Amino acid sequence: MTAKKSTFILDVDGVLTTGQFLYSKRGKEFKVFGPDDNDALQILKKYMDIVFISGDKKGFAISKKRIVDDMGFELHLVDVARRTEWIHQKYDKKKVIYMGDGIFDGLVMKEVAYSIAPADADKSAKKNANYVTKRKGGERAVAEACIHLMETVLKKKNWISLRHD
Amino acid sequence: MTAKKSTFILDVDGVLTTGQFLYSKRGKEFKVFGPDDNDALQILKKYMDIVFISGDKKGFAISKKRIVDDMGFELHLVDVARRTEWIHQKYDKKKVIYMGDGIFDGLVMKEVAYSIAPADADKSAKKNANYVTKRKGGERAVAEACIHLMETVLKKKNWISLRHD
Amino acid sequence: MTAKKSTFILDVDGVLTTGQFLYSKRGKEFKVFGPDDNDALQILKKYMDIVFISGDKKGFAISKKRIVDDMGFELHLVDVARRTEWIHQKYDKKKVIYMGDGIFDGLVMKEVAYSIAPADADKSAKKNANYVTKRKGGERAVAEACIHLMETVLKKKNWISLRHD
Amino acid sequence: MTAKKSTFILDVDGVLTTGQFLYSKRGKEFKVFGPDDNDALQILKKYMDIVFISGDKKGFAISKKRIVDDMGFELHLVDVARRTEWIHQKYDKKKVIYMGDGIFDGLVMKEVAYSIAPADADKSAKKNANYVTKRKGGERAVAEACIHLMETVLKKKNWISLRHD
Repeated sequence: MTAKKSTFILDVDGVLTTGQFLYSKRGKEFKVFGPDDNDALQILKKYMDIVFISGDKKGFAISKKRIVDDMGFELHLVDVARRTEWIHQKYDKKKVIYMGDGIFDGLVMKEVAYSIAPADADKSAKKNANYVTKRKGGERAVAEACIHLMETVLKKKNWISLRHD
Repeated sequence: MTAKKSTFILDVDGVLTTGQFLYSKRGKEFKVFGPDDNDALQILKKYMDIVFISGDKKGFAISKKRIVDDMGFELHLVDVARRTEWIHQKYDKKKVIYMGDGIFDGLVMKEVAYSIAPADADKSAKKNANYVTKRKGGERAVAEACIHLMETVLKKKNWISLRHD
Repeated sequence: MTAKKSTFILDVDGVLTTGQFLYSKRGKEFKVFGPDDNDALQILKKYMDIVFISGDKKGFAISKKRIVDDMGFELHLVDVARRTEWIHQKYDKKKVIYMGDGIFDGLVMKEVAYSIAPADADKSAKKNANYVTKRKGGERAVAEACIHLMETVLKKKNWISLRHD
Repeated sequence: MTAKKSTFILDVDGVLTTGQFLYSKRGKEFKVFGPDDNDALQILKKYMDIVFISGDKKGFAISKKRIVDDMGFELHLVDVARRTEWIHQKYDKKKVIYMGDGIFDGLVMKEVAYSIAPADADKSAKKNANYVTKRKGGERAVAEACIHLMETVLKKKNWISLRHD
């Protein structure tokens, strides 16, 4: 990692959520988010650009409400099968950290600088990740990933003092 | 398995969902679905016919919205106590792969070619299944079953390349 | 157990549900029920009277919708602190089997013929129960309790054949 | 602990709830509460003042409905980064017991008399807590904390008899 800011690209479902979605007879209505993830990202964003991507069209308005409106981050609709090329077109892959959980995410992880999977990710995502969190998606996996990046990758041991900024 | 297509028949509640349903004072309103299952089924359907069955009348409109409208698969209302005869009337049982989780599903599994149960299925369902997934229903059990069928049963090691089709 | 029918009295929250309830700003709106419990109770009721009790006033309409309207069983509002006396007034305690999970249920269990707690019940409920299910509330604990009562207590090994009745 | 009443200050999300919140496209709509916690707090309040604090603005109306309207306790909106000073301004820190789960709660725990974390709390919260419950937030962690305080800290072995009061 050089002085130039890295970009932390995160998948949404199964990473920032439990991966579950609640259906009524009207369709996909709810997603399940968890504690600490937003708090940790608000500190990490002082060191890195934060970008979310999701392949979920039918639940995009839900993800957008949480991530864009309430957390203040970028969110892009990117098909699960076309993530590697999308990332390479927009970013320097040597500066990309990727966090994902799905059956195709192992392929993306091979093509970025550093990768993270939640504890309950797909087997091949976990095999290809540089770091697997102890926590599951929607149960602090993103907070743990942020702390890992700050403490281990960026060597910012005193990140917690930034909470007042 | 011969060249003729097999049919993969899946129970809905506890297999494609967590088995949980949310009740309000108005009745059964939500079911909980999970990640990767639809992505994996969209690849598996190139090799097999995919059919869902459910015994849940009161929640049928919810299951239908997810499975028929949003995922594009067949769904039939079949009582849990009459599944074996229903399957035998419509399909060649030597070509049927069944995935179920309930207290009566062990009986169905004895009468088909191959059977799968999620990790959190009923004891007798797991005892009678040829394969028990490591993941629970609604937590990638169906995705894992699909990958198992493609890699182990159908010997399609490069199935992941089909994601672009 | 003699030929005279026993009564199986079940607590609702944490036994037939996960114990969780979803609150919106309007109040308690949803409870989470699970698979197989109703199917197993519909068979057990051929051998025993089934009665549900709940201390939850604010969520009573939700419990009633599920248990009375959709499953067809009795449900009574009984304060958690007055269950033992309520049971003794209405039933012969030598014929009562009780299933509960809460911090006061251990006291009830001492005053009935046989008692069951789900795997995730309160410590003292589990200590006082004659049988602790392997499954949690809302995750087949009641189905497992029913099968345990049929197979182990009532010695009805072929209960599964009754599913067609 | 002297005769003067202690104050038990509890964080809401991840302590009294599972930490999860359900988002629709309209925003944060539901939080998930669990069994026994209210019953145990209603007994503990005979020995201690009970106060809840939450940093969650968007979900405050949900927390308020549950805690203030339905359970009858105080609830204050206090930013996660300013909890220690808020507690010190209002209370004698030697009389404060704190229960929290988040990435900043370890700092608060260092500045109170006694502290408790749920089983699934953040790593540093658990490291700094005097007692870590076996149960998770929203799965009886608060009930277990109350019983721990009554039996171990206050030496009230017969607290269960108070349920009739």
